[in-house]
Amino acid sequence: MEDPKLLNYLETFVSAKRLQRFEEVLHWRTRYLTVVMEDVYHQHNASAVIRSADIFGIQDVHLVEDRFSDRLDKKIALGAQKWTNIHKHSSTEECIKSLRGQGFSIIATTSKPEAKTIEQIPIDQKMAFVFGTEKEGLSEDALAKADELLHIPMVGFTESLNVSVAVAIVLHQITKKLHSSGQNWQLSKEEKAVIRADWIKKSIKNIDKIVARFQEGM
Amino acid sequence: MEDPKLLNYLETFVSAKRLQRFEEVLHWRTRYLTVVMEDVYHQHNASAVIRSADIFGIQDVHLVEDRFSDRLDKKIALGAQKWTNIHKHSSTEECIKSLRGQGFSIIATTSKPEAKTIEQIPIDQKMAFVFGTEKEGLSEDALAKADELLHIPMVGFTESLNVSVAVAIVLHQITKKLHSSGQNWQLSKEEKAVIRADWIKKSIKNIDKIVARFQEGM
Repeated sequence: MEDPKLLNYLETFVSAKRLQRFEEVLHWRTRYLTVVMEDVYHQHNASAVIRSADIFGIQDVHLVEDRFSDRLDKKIALGAQKWTNIHKHSSTEECIKSLRGQGFSIIATTSKPEAKTIEQIPIDQKMAFVFGTEKEGLSEDALAKADELLHIPMVGFTESLNVSVAVAIVLHQITKKLHSSGQNWQLSKEEKAVIRADWIKKSIKNIDKIVARFQEGM
Repeated sequence: MEDPKLLNYLETFVSAKRLQRFEEVLHWRTRYLTVVMEDVYHQHNASAVIRSADIFGIQDVHLVEDRFSDRLDKKIALGAQKWTNIHKHSSTEECIKSLRGQGFSIIATTSKPEAKTIEQIPIDQKMAFVFGTEKEGLSEDALAKADELLHIPMVGFTESLNVSVAVAIVLHQITKKLHSSGQNWQLSKEEKAVIRADWIKKSIKNIDKIVARFQEGM
């Protein structure tokens, strides 16, 4: 955890308006839900997914980078990912194992019509929604290891939704349901403090110099 | 309306499986809802919106092309728009006037939090959802002339959803509500027949030659 004196010092570099915004956003932030994306090929999809996560209050996004590892680093646009925690994994198996260890139910999104709809997914446990690549859909690993299969009903000729669109539909609907439920989905006071400190640092230009100056003055 | 003999002849060029698919898709098609997009700058957004319209069963998409008229023609990707009717308009004003004349309630999407949420929008009248450009949002014309203002609640730092994502969220939720309502949202028998004939023609390669051959044989 951050030195409280340093944090107090750093706060003086951030406007009151912005600090107020942090409180509002933290109020709605959750780690009860998370998103896992298997290899994402198109840049605008990866950045759109992170943007949707931020918009619907999801703090953590997990990216599996089996094949395009050099791509993603370069390609994720600056912006919303500054305010979310991006976790990188080298395989779907490892990612799922890690999330299950943290108590998440693994929900794989598919186009199979026998899968559950969003309304039918139980929300009494933390949920990790796993999305596949645009071209191939979810990997066998993800499908085999999932606790639940989810699909979004479609009634046209087109057989799949753009992945960033599918993520947004799921997050929009599930967060709405969660917010009106009795589940304990909000961040703890401690989690909020850590994230708030991170956001403060990310809001300050020349943060390294400012921290160094503070430490010299001690 | 199509010559029934020609139509019977053309049907012989389309597989039974495909004709069956047409019936399934027509069952869910609606003209009770439509989407209007003001100047859409990015190609992938325009094609993603048309794709979402197809996926959620919306037959008509309206595009207003004040400024980028040469862009859109070239830029809309082949695919889903084959199965939807794309209507082009030279101004938002003209488009809204025309839709209102057809009995549509005009619903403008905005980021204003005082606007209604999707659940609060009445569905007892045909609905046209108007979406603005990514950069500037809706035009003053659209906002001033709307019957209802709609917004999607957002709780993060990012202040706007990608337009194609916003369209998909709205269509997903409103079609779900409509399908479980008592509204008469389905196409009439006559409308289905016209659209079916159009799809049959679009499914046949060298349609012009085949129609010519039929007409010579008469």
